[in-house]
Amino acid sequence: MLRLPNPTPVSALAELVGGQAEGESGLLIEGASTLEKAQASDISFLGNPKYAEAAAASEAGCLLLPPAAKGIPGRAKSRIYVEDPQYAFSQVLWLIANAHPAALPSVSDKASVHYQAKLGPNIEIGAFSVVEKGCLIGEATSIGAQCYIGENVRIGRHCKIYPQVVIREGCVLGDRVIIHSGTVVGADGFGFSTDKKTGKHRKIPQLGNVIIGDDVELGANVTIDRATIGSTEIGPGSKIDNLVQLAHNVKIGRDCIIVSQAGVAGSSELGDRVILAGQAGVVGHIKLGDGAIIMAQTGVTSDVDKGAIMFGSPAKPRREAFKLQALYNKLPEIYEALKLVRQQLGVKTKESEPRENESRANHD
Amino acid sequence: MLRLPNPTPVSALAELVGGQAEGESGLLIEGASTLEKAQASDISFLGNPKYAEAAAASEAGCLLLPPAAKGIPGRAKSRIYVEDPQYAFSQVLWLIANAHPAALPSVSDKASVHYQAKLGPNIEIGAFSVVEKGCLIGEATSIGAQCYIGENVRIGRHCKIYPQVVIREGCVLGDRVIIHSGTVVGADGFGFSTDKKTGKHRKIPQLGNVIIGDDVELGANVTIDRATIGSTEIGPGSKIDNLVQLAHNVKIGRDCIIVSQAGVAGSSELGDRVILAGQAGVVGHIKLGDGAIIMAQTGVTSDVDKGAIMFGSPAKPRREAFKLQALYNKLPEIYEALKLVRQQLGVKTKESEPRENESRANHD
Amino acid sequence: MLRLPNPTPVSALAELVGGQAEGESGLLIEGASTLEKAQASDISFLGNPKYAEAAAASEAGCLLLPPAAKGIPGRAKSRIYVEDPQYAFSQVLWLIANAHPAALPSVSDKASVHYQAKLGPNIEIGAFSVVEKGCLIGEATSIGAQCYIGENVRIGRHCKIYPQVVIREGCVLGDRVIIHSGTVVGADGFGFSTDKKTGKHRKIPQLGNVIIGDDVELGANVTIDRATIGSTEIGPGSKIDNLVQLAHNVKIGRDCIIVSQAGVAGSSELGDRVILAGQAGVVGHIKLGDGAIIMAQTGVTSDVDKGAIMFGSPAKPRREAFKLQALYNKLPEIYEALKLVRQQLGVKTKESEPRENESRANHD
Repeated sequence: MLRLPNPTPVSALAELVGGQAEGESGLLIEGASTLEKAQASDISFLGNPKYAEAAAASEAGCLLLPPAAKGIPGRAKSRIYVEDPQYAFSQVLWLIANAHPAALPSVSDKASVHYQAKLGPNIEIGAFSVVEKGCLIGEATSIGAQCYIGENVRIGRHCKIYPQVVIREGCVLGDRVIIHSGTVVGADGFGFSTDKKTGKHRKIPQLGNVIIGDDVELGANVTIDRATIGSTEIGPGSKIDNLVQLAHNVKIGRDCIIVSQAGVAGSSELGDRVILAGQAGVVGHIKLGDGAIIMAQTGVTSDVDKGAIMFGSPAKPRREAFKLQALYNKLPEIYEALKLVRQQLGVKTKESEPRENESRANHD
Repeated sequence: MLRLPNPTPVSALAELVGGQAEGESGLLIEGASTLEKAQASDISFLGNPKYAEAAAASEAGCLLLPPAAKGIPGRAKSRIYVEDPQYAFSQVLWLIANAHPAALPSVSDKASVHYQAKLGPNIEIGAFSVVEKGCLIGEATSIGAQCYIGENVRIGRHCKIYPQVVIREGCVLGDRVIIHSGTVVGADGFGFSTDKKTGKHRKIPQLGNVIIGDDVELGANVTIDRATIGSTEIGPGSKIDNLVQLAHNVKIGRDCIIVSQAGVAGSSELGDRVILAGQAGVVGHIKLGDGAIIMAQTGVTSDVDKGAIMFGSPAKPRREAFKLQALYNKLPEIYEALKLVRQQLGVKTKESEPRENESRANHD
Repeated sequence: MLRLPNPTPVSALAELVGGQAEGESGLLIEGASTLEKAQASDISFLGNPKYAEAAAASEAGCLLLPPAAKGIPGRAKSRIYVEDPQYAFSQVLWLIANAHPAALPSVSDKASVHYQAKLGPNIEIGAFSVVEKGCLIGEATSIGAQCYIGENVRIGRHCKIYPQVVIREGCVLGDRVIIHSGTVVGADGFGFSTDKKTGKHRKIPQLGNVIIGDDVELGANVTIDRATIGSTEIGPGSKIDNLVQLAHNVKIGRDCIIVSQAGVAGSSELGDRVILAGQAGVVGHIKLGDGAIIMAQTGVTSDVDKGAIMFGSPAKPRREAFKLQALYNKLPEIYEALKLVRQQLGVKTKESEPRENESRANHD
């Protein structure tokens, strides 16, 4: 389905990805596809051992495989062995992605750009976008349709802002930042001071901003709040998935991965290369060390050591959490064993079997 | 509060909904309301047995009731018995909804529609919407204000796209699709290949699209990512609530229900009529069989059988999960019993009672 | 970094916040900052005892401190003692926030305002916003760029609607309401009637609206659905954080706090001053009493008493939940003790130690 710009021999693709070709290295590859849908002129890849069978059965003309797959049978007429087949495949995909010539960038005459905004060369600004006073937008940056770029926002070079993104006043983006549609950068932090007598919540002005490092990518409908004072910060290279919430004054280190629907509460700090899996939550005012991994749906309530892997709500180190889970799963056995022991000792059990409807887990 | 287009006798409403009238079948009904707020000229309904008392006390002139409610006392002067009173009530509401004559559809002269987009007859496109090159929009489809429809998007007939929706390039929608505001269809999937040496995450191009079947409804601020290659697919008749995340290459079957804030990670597949309750999560690369039900906040980590009902994080079959919950709730009893047993055996307990502050559950 | 409009003596700031100055009360304060970054001419504050050390070491010229901090050593040349230092600091921040003179409000000639909309005096409407027929917008309300205000929406006075907000037809906002970007008020509730024979979900018209009280603040990318009939209601003074979901016919009382990514299902009712912490969920058709506190990631499945504090999924009263958590953490001890008991009684244990890989908690 995805066509390469030109039919390309396997040997040339092997060179592109730094791999070792095997089989018909002169075979011309015309497209890239999944293992299931690939045809004789397609290249595909094995990125996850789970799909080894699909790889063996694939009708692809060429497969990108890890060195460990050498000698394993398969139908493909050619193979390329490479350390990271998924990355190699992405290199082929870039050939395709870059083949589509981009339209010449231009500032739409339907956009509203303040005359005191400064635009670098080769900028694109889409229809119905608003760029307010004092903005500084770097060379070759593309701002899609219907975006809102508030006063004094600074955006670096070669950024890609998709349609319907909001960047509020004073926020700062590095180079090569990608922001997907619906994302809001720099809305007010959720800060209130509650009057103990009346119970009224009085708004605390949110006068800081958001600073986003180079090479950051933000998914769709993400929210990153501005700091109360100072800055909410996303370190260079970090990747944030859809519907993630980062509260005011949060600091995210370099090369972090924050998966969809995770949230980090105010003033918490993540080190470098931290991973938050989907729907994980981090309470406010804590620190997660470099390389920490927070598993899906986990709720982190206190500082986490470097490299620790945490699971559960509240979070525990994975080893401990899994051991407790295993024992939890043994509760029926424990309960029965205890009953037998008590019978043996002549103790009367005062309660009968747990009935299912005793549970409060009526949850839908 | 909600007025029928004309005062309508109970007998005619009974005919409309295919029910059996009882009592004053000539009574003229003028409006529809809740059980609590209904007045003598209103119709209301009993959809949930929890509200049986409110139904008995309601001042509605006519009640839509299930056959099982025959003979039960109540104040209403007339009743209509019908298998599915909620559905019957929705049929009355459609009378009201359709009475409001829609404005003649038109393409706003404030929209930006590429001259190479093809628009069917009776199309509506709202102010400040952008429709890019190569789009194909079917008959009688309405696109609200401020929408972004990317290049080569195909939208079927009789669709309703509310204001501020983004549909990225190449995505395909069937007929009668409804999409609510703030939703983003076809943003890039969250795909990166991490360099093991440097820890840098290298973007994998996301060159696929999203295909949405007939009669699908997407709520507000939903995110559905485009596939890496191939398509992310939502089967016909599936209904997706607000703030749901569907990752790249996910497949959703027919007539599924995905409740608010649920998320499905990359490449996972849901069969037909699967229900994900609110805030549920599904990890990547797994399959959920037809008719599976995933309860609220549940985290599904492996394949789920057809028709299975799953609960917990990590998910277990409901029966097992509830039994374990019931035993969990007995832990104080188990702990006490074990202490007594040990005392009886003359074993010294080395630890005292658990104190509340030993818990790590300090979670807010 | 944040400059006061004029250098101001400590004594004047003490008067502003109703506190008691100590030390160099004539010292001129020029700015406000964090404890870490404050310099000799800055004011800062101690709002959380966790930061007491940072306060003692701060180079701020003046610190706002609670009375309990009297006599505690520190470097600051002056102090102001006040009951609520965080609130006092927010009063100083308001000095700064209000110093920035707002541009004269105006209705952009790039907005699309229906001639049958009624606008009060001193209204601002940003570029590319749409205000439909029959809208009523109160005095001094600001509607940012690219907003959509549907037919017959009523908005009170002194409201602030940030760019790219959608308010669907017929919704009603009080005075001084703040709504952040990306938020959708009044999308259709998620209401379907499922045909038991075919499994098809038939849409139930959503003909109600949303009513938002005075002084409510809604964060970014929030979704609040319109009622099926009647109104979804947010009581005065309630504050809603980013990415929160409130379903159709939900009622939220006065002065509630709903933290990011929490969700409330259809028809549930929260009393006054209820707190939902982050990622909490509330099922449909239940009631939470005044002052109830729902901890993070908790799943509430049944009515909650006034003032109760709930934790866990499914939710239990905090005391009970923490006690069970503590016993859960003792499972290894319980398991070992039981094994010993059985050995002592001469019962053979049929199962070996739980192995880590027995757990199903493989969750990322």
